[in-house]
Amino acid sequence: MAGQSGNARRPGRRTGDSGTRETILATALEMFAERGFAATSVRAIAKQAEVDPALVRHFFGTKQELFTTAVIDRSEIAGRLTEAFDGPAERIGERLVHTYFGMWENPDTGQVMRTLFRSAVSDEDLAPLFVRTMLANLQDRTSDTETSARLTRMPLIAPQILGVAVCRYVLRIPGIADAPLEDLVHRLAPQVQKELVG
Amino acid sequence: MAGQSGNARRPGRRTGDSGTRETILATALEMFAERGFAATSVRAIAKQAEVDPALVRHFFGTKQELFTTAVIDRSEIAGRLTEAFDGPAERIGERLVHTYFGMWENPDTGQVMRTLFRSAVSDEDLAPLFVRTMLANLQDRTSDTETSARLTRMPLIAPQILGVAVCRYVLRIPGIADAPLEDLVHRLAPQVQKELVG
Repeated sequence: MAGQSGNARRPGRRTGDSGTRETILATALEMFAERGFAATSVRAIAKQAEVDPALVRHFFGTKQELFTTAVIDRSEIAGRLTEAFDGPAERIGERLVHTYFGMWENPDTGQVMRTLFRSAVSDEDLAPLFVRTMLANLQDRTSDTETSARLTRMPLIAPQILGVAVCRYVLRIPGIADAPLEDLVHRLAPQVQKELVG
Repeated sequence: MAGQSGNARRPGRRTGDSGTRETILATALEMFAERGFAATSVRAIAKQAEVDPALVRHFFGTKQELFTTAVIDRSEIAGRLTEAFDGPAERIGERLVHTYFGMWENPDTGQVMRTLFRSAVSDEDLAPLFVRTMLANLQDRTSDTETSARLTRMPLIAPQILGVAVCRYVLRIPGIADAPLEDLVHRLAPQVQKELVG
């Protein structure tokens, strides 16, 4: 799925494969965000995008695969994570934690993060597929062997950063939801640094 | 809400306030677990329990309050957490982490943990209410001032232990879902110990 986001985007709808793909992905992400993953069918997305459901399945496969491609291709998440790995190795933990929480705090990307999390919770197969595909996408974006090795350790930091994000932004647990963001970043950055860089 | 679970349970249904309360709570927890929090109405629970919806609201208040009381009164969670705080202070972290993950691993309590988590994710007001009520319940169960002080710091360990539980049991993230449980416990216990006992 990596690389497909680089296709030239043509104006208008269904002027070619690329335009149709983009329309489907944009429609899918919007509908998943609005109605939730479980309540949104491939058929409903196809209808809204004015294409045949068979075409959606031909392009993107299962609903889980469509969701994964929509989030990775249509959001800034992969690009921003890639940027966090660039720069001095001794501050990767800090940059990554800043980037991750920045995406939750920002109104636009925060909406995608919530949609992603709620969808993954509602469907057992989605999270492992999403993690695998996102990591493959990030690997495709790097030619650096050290970054490549660090990317393989990304799932190991998931509990720490996702734990704080869920308690703060989704569950709104007192003491976490109202803590200064910088306090949480300062606690997490060294742990992430140690796990990814050593 | 604490203490009400200690009422004598009379045989049969609606033989008195206590029996009716128990029937409503059992029905509520079962329906929430089966259909999810959002899709289960107080009206549907009342119908299934063969009581008037007004009675359910009179006894338990909002749907969020009913859910909270049902989980706290009808599950072993509060009792087992209380036990984890008993015993030598230097091993509270280890006992608490063992107890917490033991509840996720056990088929019966694991089902309650999943229901609790999925429900809290689907409703913004539920998690803060549940945390507050559960902590008050645990406080009611202790007369020890040190345990009491430790309980107030419980929300601070939520990101760490919930982060691992969500990645392992709900999202099934590769590398966390298939890691030996003991490895995760060994990593978390010292952090929890430090946070609660210092």
